[in-house]
Amino acid sequence: MSVTDDVLKNNQQYARSFNLGNLPTPPARKLAIVACMDARLTIEALLGLKTGDAHIIRNAGGVVTEDALRSLIISHHLLGTQEFMIINHTECGMLTFQDADLKEKLRHATHTSVVAPETFHAFSDLETNVREQIEKVKSHPWIPSSIPVRGFIYDVKTGSLTEVR
Amino acid sequence: MSVTDDVLKNNQQYARSFNLGNLPTPPARKLAIVACMDARLTIEALLGLKTGDAHIIRNAGGVVTEDALRSLIISHHLLGTQEFMIINHTECGMLTFQDADLKEKLRHATHTSVVAPETFHAFSDLETNVREQIEKVKSHPWIPSSIPVRGFIYDVKTGSLTEVR
Repeated sequence: MSVTDDVLKNNQQYARSFNLGNLPTPPARKLAIVACMDARLTIEALLGLKTGDAHIIRNAGGVVTEDALRSLIISHHLLGTQEFMIINHTECGMLTFQDADLKEKLRHATHTSVVAPETFHAFSDLETNVREQIEKVKSHPWIPSSIPVRGFIYDVKTGSLTEVR
Repeated sequence: MSVTDDVLKNNQQYARSFNLGNLPTPPARKLAIVACMDARLTIEALLGLKTGDAHIIRNAGGVVTEDALRSLIISHHLLGTQEFMIINHTECGMLTFQDADLKEKLRHATHTSVVAPETFHAFSDLETNVREQIEKVKSHPWIPSSIPVRGFIYDVKTGSLTEVR
């Protein structure tokens, strides 16, 4: 059985005891989070959030890409979130390669050259990366300066968040 | 207390009973999911996934943007995932506006014109949108055709996934 079929069976069980059908669309806690897609991060669990509490935006690295900005702008302007958190983590895969090497590997393996993605956003220092992501959000003219934007590193060995200042 | 400070307290409690410090970087179930950032979707819970099982990529709408493709390519080529799922959902905020109107509202409210995001990816039909996202993944030359890419609509009233074929 494929993994997809297996998790669809899990979903049938989830739906049988589902009692959250009346949650409103805007997040209850008015919080939006940008975090890495990494499998070791279950964002709701590690922040003690319940279903319905927060918008959760995730991509490779927890990078504030154009797409993450798009999501944050929609989150705030259409759905009322008022605080943003950015979460990167130790042992991130994005620390283990360089964009140019990965592009070359993919070009070689597939005999194709590709327009998008233009960049893979690999990075070499976690704290510097978190600070840059905060800056990208804060400097966007469609994100009000009144919104707190705080950045964190999650330690995959301990389960703890440390703020990057 | 800010919501951020409050969830940081929750994280201290999470870390105290944390026992997942030995998970490897590659997702145990070799699965990557693209889903909406909507607060009503707790992806791990609704699919019965454990911490460490799957890459979870989320944005406004669960759209296969350039950034989602970037994440899927890294997920497969660097971290070995072999199945992809795309999850949109009923009552999605992306069904409630049009890109041009939102841009005009933001320009008017902030007296700025902005280069990025270029588009907000609003859509008018869920099933059509899911099919388009599947197609975007399947047609990318850096995603092997051997990877199953299946798309679903999550019903926020019932907790159930329905496959879009």
